[in-house]
Amino acid sequence: MIQRQFFDAASSTYTYLLASGPGREALLIDPVREKVDDYLKAVEELSLRLVRAVDTHIHADHVTGLGALRDATGCVTLMGERSRAECVSERLREGEVIHLDGVRLRVLDTPGHTDDSLSLVLDPERPRAVFTGDVLLIRGTGRTDFQNGDPEASWDSIVGKLFRLPDETAVYPAHDYKGWTSSTIGEEKRYNPRLAGKTRAEYVALMRALNLPDPKLMDVAVSANLRCGQSAS
Amino acid sequence: MIQRQFFDAASSTYTYLLASGPGREALLIDPVREKVDDYLKAVEELSLRLVRAVDTHIHADHVTGLGALRDATGCVTLMGERSRAECVSERLREGEVIHLDGVRLRVLDTPGHTDDSLSLVLDPERPRAVFTGDVLLIRGTGRTDFQNGDPEASWDSIVGKLFRLPDETAVYPAHDYKGWTSSTIGEEKRYNPRLAGKTRAEYVALMRALNLPDPKLMDVAVSANLRCGQSAS
Repeated sequence: MIQRQFFDAASSTYTYLLASGPGREALLIDPVREKVDDYLKAVEELSLRLVRAVDTHIHADHVTGLGALRDATGCVTLMGERSRAECVSERLREGEVIHLDGVRLRVLDTPGHTDDSLSLVLDPERPRAVFTGDVLLIRGTGRTDFQNGDPEASWDSIVGKLFRLPDETAVYPAHDYKGWTSSTIGEEKRYNPRLAGKTRAEYVALMRALNLPDPKLMDVAVSANLRCGQSAS
Repeated sequence: MIQRQFFDAASSTYTYLLASGPGREALLIDPVREKVDDYLKAVEELSLRLVRAVDTHIHADHVTGLGALRDATGCVTLMGERSRAECVSERLREGEVIHLDGVRLRVLDTPGHTDDSLSLVLDPERPRAVFTGDVLLIRGTGRTDFQNGDPEASWDSIVGKLFRLPDETAVYPAHDYKGWTSSTIGEEKRYNPRLAGKTRAEYVALMRALNLPDPKLMDVAVSANLRCGQSAS
C-alpha cells in the first residue's frame, strides 16, 4: 500500500495520494492547485497512474487542483452529489464504493461543514482509515457558518456516522493548524474538546457562537472551485 | 504500533512519537521546545509513558525539547556518542539497539550534516522505517558546511549505510520544506537529485558549492541545544 500525505503550508491543507502499489491506479484526495506539479512528480516517480481525484467538498480556503489534474492526466474528477461544482465528472452518493486496483473507499455523506461534504473510508469491510475533509478535524471540527453549513448536521455526521467506525480507525483530515498529522476515531471520541462529554444542543450552541472571520481566500476560492480551480472562460 | 509525526511550521521540523500500543513505553525523536506541551498532551491522551527522547544531532534551526521533556517526565535523553551536548543522559553508538516495550531502533552512525548525526532504523531485523535526521532528506540532503559537517562523510553515510537498507524502507527525515511527509530508500536512490547518477566526487563538489546563508536561529539554537534547550544558569 502506498499512502502519502502532502502539506500545503499556505492553507494548512493535507492532500492524500493512495494506491496499492507501483504500476497501479492511484487517487488523490483534496489536491491544492499550487501543488499539482508536486503531485504529478510523485505519481510519476512512484510509477503510478492517476485515475481519480476527489474533493471532499467545495473548499473556501484554497483553490482545488481537480481541473489541472484532469487536464494533465485525464483522471476522473469526483465530488459529493450535492456539490454545486458543474465541472466534476462524477458525483458520489452515500454507500457508494470507489474501486481502484487494490484500493477501496466507501463514501459517507457527512454534511455539516458544508452541505456537500463527504468522508471516505479506506477498506470499508475492515476500516483502516477515514479521510474526513473538514467535518472532523484533529481535536476540532470544521466551522458550520457558510456554504449551507449546519451545526446539527455536523453533529449527526460526526457522532452518528464517523464515531460508529472502530476506535482504531486512523483519522486523516483536510487541515491541521498546529502540526498534528493524524488521529484515530477513539481519540476524537474521548478528547475532541468540541464533542467529548457534550450534548448535541451544547455542540450546536458552541458552533453558533464561534463568530469566525471569513477565510482570507473565500471569495476567490469558492468561485474558482465551482469551476474545479480553472479560470473563467 | 503507534507512530505519530508532528510538524513545527516555524522551523519545518518533523518530530516522531513511537510506541507499540496504549499503556506502553514511548520515545520521541527530534522534539522542538515550543511544542513540548503538545507532545506531552499526545503522550497522555494515548495513555503512553515517555521513557526516551532522542536528538539525531545538535540542531541549528530550532531549540530542542529534550531538557523540558526530561524535566516533565524523567525520560532518558539520548544523542550520538560524538555529541558535544553535556546534558544528555546516554550516548548512542553505531549498532546499539534502543529497546522499548515492543519497539526496537538500531543506531546508525551517519555523520556528514554534522559530525554527531545518527539515524535510527525501526525493526532492525526487517527494517520498516528509518529516521534520518538531516543527513538524508526527501529529494535532498542536509547541508555540510557547519558543525564539522563533511560532504565526503555525508556521501558515505547515505550511500554506504542508508542506501543498503531495503528499497521499501520508509524514510522519515527531521525536515521538509515543501510539504512532503515521507519517502522510501528506493525513491531516494532513484530520484534524489543530489545523489542519483552522481559520483562521490560530484556530490562533494556540489555540496561545497552551495554557499548557503547561516540558519536564522543558528547562534541561539546551537548554544541552547548544547544545554538540551534549557536556559544558561
